[in-house]
Amino acid sequence: MHFDEAPAFPRGFRCASRNCGLKQDGKDLALFASHTDAVAAAVFTRNQFPGAPVTLGRETIQGGILRAIVANSKVSNVATGTEGLANARRMAAAAAREIGTTPDRVLVSSTGVIGRRLPIEKIEAGLMGMASDLQSDPLVGAAGIMTTDTHPKALSVRVGGGDATITWVAKGSGMIEPNMATMLAYIFTDAAIERSALDRLLRDAVHVSFNMLSVDSDTSTSDTCAMLANGQAGRVDERQFFQALVAGCIRMAETLARDGEGAKHLIRARVSGAASEEEARRIAKSLVNSPLVKTMVHGADPNVGRLLMAVGKCFDCTIAPGSTDASINGYAVVRGGTSVDFDDAAVRETLRREVVDLDVSLGIGSASATAFGCDLTAGYIEENAAYYSS
Amino acid sequence: MHFDEAPAFPRGFRCASRNCGLKQDGKDLALFASHTDAVAAAVFTRNQFPGAPVTLGRETIQGGILRAIVANSKVSNVATGTEGLANARRMAAAAAREIGTTPDRVLVSSTGVIGRRLPIEKIEAGLMGMASDLQSDPLVGAAGIMTTDTHPKALSVRVGGGDATITWVAKGSGMIEPNMATMLAYIFTDAAIERSALDRLLRDAVHVSFNMLSVDSDTSTSDTCAMLANGQAGRVDERQFFQALVAGCIRMAETLARDGEGAKHLIRARVSGAASEEEARRIAKSLVNSPLVKTMVHGADPNVGRLLMAVGKCFDCTIAPGSTDASINGYAVVRGGTSVDFDDAAVRETLRREVVDLDVSLGIGSASATAFGCDLTAGYIEENAAYYSS
Repeated sequence: MHFDEAPAFPRGFRCASRNCGLKQDGKDLALFASHTDAVAAAVFTRNQFPGAPVTLGRETIQGGILRAIVANSKVSNVATGTEGLANARRMAAAAAREIGTTPDRVLVSSTGVIGRRLPIEKIEAGLMGMASDLQSDPLVGAAGIMTTDTHPKALSVRVGGGDATITWVAKGSGMIEPNMATMLAYIFTDAAIERSALDRLLRDAVHVSFNMLSVDSDTSTSDTCAMLANGQAGRVDERQFFQALVAGCIRMAETLARDGEGAKHLIRARVSGAASEEEARRIAKSLVNSPLVKTMVHGADPNVGRLLMAVGKCFDCTIAPGSTDASINGYAVVRGGTSVDFDDAAVRETLRREVVDLDVSLGIGSASATAFGCDLTAGYIEENAAYYSS
Repeated sequence: MHFDEAPAFPRGFRCASRNCGLKQDGKDLALFASHTDAVAAAVFTRNQFPGAPVTLGRETIQGGILRAIVANSKVSNVATGTEGLANARRMAAAAAREIGTTPDRVLVSSTGVIGRRLPIEKIEAGLMGMASDLQSDPLVGAAGIMTTDTHPKALSVRVGGGDATITWVAKGSGMIEPNMATMLAYIFTDAAIERSALDRLLRDAVHVSFNMLSVDSDTSTSDTCAMLANGQAGRVDERQFFQALVAGCIRMAETLARDGEGAKHLIRARVSGAASEEEARRIAKSLVNSPLVKTMVHGADPNVGRLLMAVGKCFDCTIAPGSTDASINGYAVVRGGTSVDFDDAAVRETLRREVVDLDVSLGIGSASATAFGCDLTAGYIEENAAYYSS
């Protein structure tokens, strides 16, 4: 799959971002718009304390049509009660006025600190005239939704065998676990797809990508992944479209993991030979979430018993110690549940690579799964010990 | 409950520790012995890759009688195959010879690095003559089982209304989660208790103490908690005995959490008003395991939305956002799922205390649970990024 170095939007999509006074410096407000109504689908956090924008978004997405997404950073509008929901509605209405549509066709996201009142007046004022800023570089919109991200994140790819493009714009680097992250991911395409197919393809792609991403095992209250298809490129081969969609979602999940708070390494944990896909997913997640595995990678220190520990602590999964093999970047370190002699210097060297692949073969069944995570560093702690007051 | 400042053994128990050459400096071998056969019970890790000593220990404890415990630090004898099990048996046999009993009355523990061959010859040589070192200070034995612990851990208490004593000797500071820790905890008493009662009381006490302890969510392959009752003080009131047992197990769990790798704070998370005890336990664990809650405590930064996040990510628990209250060291910070104004300076000040109490009231049912954890610091990462090679 070829991803463009300089991401571009599909036909009919544009974006803008501004500073509306929530952050001292940098963009804090982003607007994404389609020239025409777009078929839309979305998935949201499973956290039981969803933010007001998520509550509203679940209602909005029922309509199945979107013209715009408006998002702010710095304040997440979570744990803000009925006033928070009213403010999310005001934000949708202000964006709708600006681009000339109805509030039920605007998806709202907020990301940032939990439990603070949303400064809705600043956002309403900031949206005024923003339609005239709309332009074609996805990175401009990506910049408006950053929190602790170190760089804006966007990528695009041409769908094989056709004329359609898919573009991803996302943010997220902490409070990222399963079932979405403090992750906002917006996917835009000019392919023509029916609503039911769009919903199914999005869920299937998220299942193997963003839902297998974990920076720190904490699940945000604001996670949102939405996809808009405005049809301007006409019909596409569904199989080829799905291939491109999955590849881009996985690549974006890896991009988010790589930029995890304080992270120096992307960890990909692939579990194969599992009794079921569900068990493969749980064990792969256990590996990328284990502080001891994460610090092993950070220290480039092949304490390989930690891999077995992280597999074995999945108490309810089917595991046969005698048939369990493990490798690090292709170097076999465990065979049949027992540590094997390995080239310590070579494994140390390979652990210094930016991408570390951990492979565990359970030898039980034929199911597999891959999880995406990062190492745990002092940088994570520095960022999170004083996030609120910064 | 009054715990002795200088812990002492109950009648008939003694211990010794030595350096047998596994560590460069410090004790690495400990022996605990009863003058007479003691009724015994034990619980072990649920990790599916248990070390050879755990496999042997499950067999040994079937007999229900112990005379001694022998334990080494530095090498855990995990992932060592059939040779590892043979070495654990040799270790039991060597200790049995030394104190004049049979190997089936000796419980073996090993703690340290996973996947390295146990230097059994050094341990056998080290045990020679060790019976003559046996003496009455539990801290001497505690010193022999330390790994990354910063101090040896022992405590003792007199059972109310009688003549019996209970003494705890334990170690553990990382790879500590649920269902036991990289924790070795040995409990000695001179009370006379039947085997079946001892087993039941131990399991019940562990349920609310060591099984609610989590330093880093990682579950060791070596965890063992064993209890020996040699009867030399005669019968005790079971209710009073259980009260003392639970109080001491909780106090030792707190001691282990306080000395968690890199920890500066003990975090106690109490969840009440839950639909079931199981759900209360899961939510309390979610709080003490959340990296974002742990870094919040470390930074003394009242980012209280993280408490809701950690509760809400228990997807399958019964939670009603509108009835959820939370407090930090008694200061209300959330009411009905919404952040409330609180005295920021006072909460910051109280977060600097060594012990931080987080209380969450779910307002659903009447079940409750308390979990014990610690903050996450750069010290944890420094210790674990280079543990293997040190």
